Amino acid sequence: MVNYPIKKSVTNQIKRSQANRGMDLEDAINQTNQFYASNDIAYIYKKPIPIQIVKVDYERRSAAKISEAYYKVPSTTDYNGIYRGRYIDFEAKETKTKTAFPLKNLHEHQIKHLDNVRRHGGISFLIVHFSLIGRTFLLDSERVLIYSTDNNGRKSIPLTEFEKNGIEISEGYLKRLDYLKAVDSFYSINEKRTPAE
Amino acid sequence: MVNYPIKKSVTNQIKRSQANRGMDLEDAINQTNQFYASNDIAYIYKKPIPIQIVKVDYERRSAAKISEAYYKVPSTTDYNGIYRGRYIDFEAKETKTKTAFPLKNLHEHQIKHLDNVRRHGGISFLIVHFSLIGRTFLLDSERVLIYSTDNNGRKSIPLTEFEKNGIEISEGYLKRLDYLKAVDSFYSINEKRTPAE
Repeated sequence: MVNYPIKKSVTNQIKRSQANRGMDLEDAINQTNQFYASNDIAYIYKKPIPIQIVKVDYERRSAAKISEAYYKVPSTTDYNGIYRGRYIDFEAKETKTKTAFPLKNLHEHQIKHLDNVRRHGGISFLIVHFSLIGRTFLLDSERVLIYSTDNNGRKSIPLTEFEKNGIEISEGYLKRLDYLKAVDSFYSINEKRTPAE
Repeated sequence: MVNYPIKKSVTNQIKRSQANRGMDLEDAINQTNQFYASNDIAYIYKKPIPIQIVKVDYERRSAAKISEAYYKVPSTTDYNGIYRGRYIDFEAKETKTKTAFPLKNLHEHQIKHLDNVRRHGGISFLIVHFSLIGRTFLLDSERVLIYSTDNNGRKSIPLTEFEKNGIEISEGYLKRLDYLKAVDSFYSINEKRTPAE
């Protein structure tokens, strides 16, 4: 059998190019949050991944090494912070399905947490990135709750729901995923309180 | 030499009794936060400790084992959440000094973070437990900032400052450390916004 090194190289190039076109949702949000913070717009951070630490080695005084630990189920959502005097809380997820977001991607208590935040006057939502169609939406937690309590066995949020009741977030350069623009646009409608000066 | 088992036992009893009198600040706050959440009063959580994961073993499919990881410096404070529509953010520290809280217990960027939150309309403060005198105080971030930028080389907040401008938090049974009572009492004075219904 003959080797085709050139073909292989072409394949690699395509792969790389696809990777560039795609978006790592977490990276995009983290970079956007950094932009918000350095421009004094908002202070929103990703929470660290919760870890159950079992064993720590203190071989060197300078750096304790964790040698046995396990992932824990997060008790809340990934992101929270403050924007214009308001408490902001959200979960961000990617999906490869093209027509709906399967709710199995969220823990039950995360949906409950988003609902708690909303009931107490905070802004809580879901950011979903449909990676295969390259579209990203913000959907208010109240809409998420409707679909999660709908017991017709479906347990997913159709793309049409995002198109109808969500706000699409466009990708940019400096603000890679300017979701606060979507927050402004969606929540200004129902605002009762004035943001801080 | 003669053994005195009874004496030893007495010493143990004293030690245990002292341990009971003492307070683990983190435990007390976590239990109080659980009380707030289960009574639908507020949703405030401790952030997980940030960890740099280096190596993960997938020996068993059920539980990935982290076999090499290191502690990272936290980028923000330990606690945040929502209370009556407001963003709440604080750091909690114990000190064994009796007359002042040494500011070396806080990272510079944590003080900056508390200031950012306050400037953006959130409620941010420090909870300090003076373990040897058994007193706990809430101090607004604005006061913390004054002492942290005071460059007379002191870099500590005297107990008198906590007594004069802070709010003392009493220990209780169900609400082990009812710091939101202190929040109510302190922040109601300067409130401009109405909390959510």
